[in-house]
Amino acid sequence: MLEEPFASTLSGLRLRTAEVINNFVLERGARIHDMVGDGDAGSLWPKVIANLEDFLQGGKRLRAAFCHWGWCGAGGAPEDDGIVRAGAALELLHAFALIHDDIMDGSQIRRGSPTMHRSYVDLHASSGCRGSSDEFGVAVAILLGDLCLGWFHELLDEATESRSRAAFARRLMAEMFTELFAGQYLDVLAQAGWSCSVHEARRIVLYKTTKYTVERPLHLGGILAGAGPALLRGYSAYALPLGEAFQLRDDLLGAFGDPALTGKPAADDLRLGKATVLLCLAQERASAAQAKELQDLLRCPNVDDAGIQGLRRLLTETGAVAATEERIGELTRTAKQRLNDIPLTPSVHDALLSLASYASHRDR
Amino acid sequence: MLEEPFASTLSGLRLRTAEVINNFVLERGARIHDMVGDGDAGSLWPKVIANLEDFLQGGKRLRAAFCHWGWCGAGGAPEDDGIVRAGAALELLHAFALIHDDIMDGSQIRRGSPTMHRSYVDLHASSGCRGSSDEFGVAVAILLGDLCLGWFHELLDEATESRSRAAFARRLMAEMFTELFAGQYLDVLAQAGWSCSVHEARRIVLYKTTKYTVERPLHLGGILAGAGPALLRGYSAYALPLGEAFQLRDDLLGAFGDPALTGKPAADDLRLGKATVLLCLAQERASAAQAKELQDLLRCPNVDDAGIQGLRRLLTETGAVAATEERIGELTRTAKQRLNDIPLTPSVHDALLSLASYASHRDR
Repeated sequence: MLEEPFASTLSGLRLRTAEVINNFVLERGARIHDMVGDGDAGSLWPKVIANLEDFLQGGKRLRAAFCHWGWCGAGGAPEDDGIVRAGAALELLHAFALIHDDIMDGSQIRRGSPTMHRSYVDLHASSGCRGSSDEFGVAVAILLGDLCLGWFHELLDEATESRSRAAFARRLMAEMFTELFAGQYLDVLAQAGWSCSVHEARRIVLYKTTKYTVERPLHLGGILAGAGPALLRGYSAYALPLGEAFQLRDDLLGAFGDPALTGKPAADDLRLGKATVLLCLAQERASAAQAKELQDLLRCPNVDDAGIQGLRRLLTETGAVAATEERIGELTRTAKQRLNDIPLTPSVHDALLSLASYASHRDR
Repeated sequence: MLEEPFASTLSGLRLRTAEVINNFVLERGARIHDMVGDGDAGSLWPKVIANLEDFLQGGKRLRAAFCHWGWCGAGGAPEDDGIVRAGAALELLHAFALIHDDIMDGSQIRRGSPTMHRSYVDLHASSGCRGSSDEFGVAVAILLGDLCLGWFHELLDEATESRSRAAFARRLMAEMFTELFAGQYLDVLAQAGWSCSVHEARRIVLYKTTKYTVERPLHLGGILAGAGPALLRGYSAYALPLGEAFQLRDDLLGAFGDPALTGKPAADDLRLGKATVLLCLAQERASAAQAKELQDLLRCPNVDDAGIQGLRRLLTETGAVAATEERIGELTRTAKQRLNDIPLTPSVHDALLSLASYASHRDR
């Protein structure tokens, strides 16, 4: 469970972030309604925007949280409105990434609801439309993802009055966007069977998770408050182990987690043959017989429940699960220790400690 | 044929734009190569970037041209490097739009070569990879489109030293991005069978073509050179009829054009049942018998060559083709006349006249 006062601050931050996103989407949605008009397709727009609003409600708002404390750590005032807009911008960027990622993975469920493209596959199928329902779902979801990406840029531009900090922040975000691309590219290729080692899987984690979820959000907050290079390096030293711990926890939840808690189908990563560090570790540690069994199960295009049980057993029997738990512990301890090298106020120090526990455990 | 000195200026501008794009992609591609490393997936990267470079070579560079003359018309120096970067940014944005558009339309051929997603469907199929080749092709193309969109923002940020003009330009581009979204949204829905009238088809043209290809590129160039609202209104008065003429020419080429010239399969728009103004006009003008014949042909999921001949005949017999040719002529004349109301130097005036002829005729 989250401890006070961190829990209250985090929940207040989530409310403020949600409010900024809601107001922004309401205003932009109305403007787009004026554009698309009141013909048949235009009349559908309020439903589309309502669906997108629902989607934008979800999530842990971790990126907004790291951005907030990156700002506070650099001396920014906690009650500032601009930094909430920056955090909300990161959440819109994340919505873009998730919507496109779900298309790329062919995922059907996210946060317990149909993924964006799935919603429009279903709408098409139930409306007796022309053409392929699958293609329609993908088309609408690509567009809505693109729209969220555009909104990220717009909202980021509203985060600060300082043009030099804004320019610096935009360069940082361009770098992060490229890093995210690199991570996704490697992930898509690994999933298609381009060979992947633990070393390569860690590279994917570095770009897709560590930098994108922890390091760059902290940097963004810092830069907007005028942080210098020493503080940004301090944030990196904390972020790099923590980001990896976060992703390893995600790997474990993705393989063993309860769908009611993760909001995703059980063992989705295993079904997709995702090149997680956990799976690569199991492959590295497997005996010849275990390696063959793993290989056979992963080759099935649609692994059944017995196959999932087999994969889970192999993850445990090879010692990959225990090694991963141990590494999460080490990484989290390292991240927390590194906070001692950064000159932070006690309240920011404590918040980043709590955030490290939260991100690496997530029992919810 | 293009007349001198316009032809030389346009071709010089294309070369400069291509050079900026090449250098940018080379530099960014190398940086991403450092990120993706030299594992199996990383080793493929040079091929991916070479393929993207090829894709970025093509096109008429119309958006860069409108941006250039929008700049010159506001007193910008023709030899300025920043405005070439702004034009190149628009071309990267256009690459994003085309790559995602081809996924949404399921198009297989663009500029005489396989579309982006098609290339990666083929790569997957020929590499004996895991999973669906179609999904892999779509995934890689979504990512590469996203990457081009990110590059658009980066290059736009390098277009001017003036922070106030840069901020104005970014707001303009955010508006254009929203307009493009609105046009694409309506287009995807119309294609899926949400009913579409000539009025609605014109709305799609306004957002997907007129504003995106002509008006906003002119505005961008103007704003970067410090244009005031009167000049921007003058550009709009010229752009609105010209953009429609451009799209109507595209409709005719899409239905009747020679694939060797258009770089697309014959009658692709008709096969897709695209809600073009041309097709909607034919539906409006059709007798009861013609309307039924049109309806039956459009309902076929895969119209054959005889069906295409039938659709072409109906477009002609309903008078839609003649009416469209006539309207292109009127719109182009109007656009040209409106140039007289804008205080332009003779060379910019003449260039915009030539650009109007070029955009609305395109015999190539």
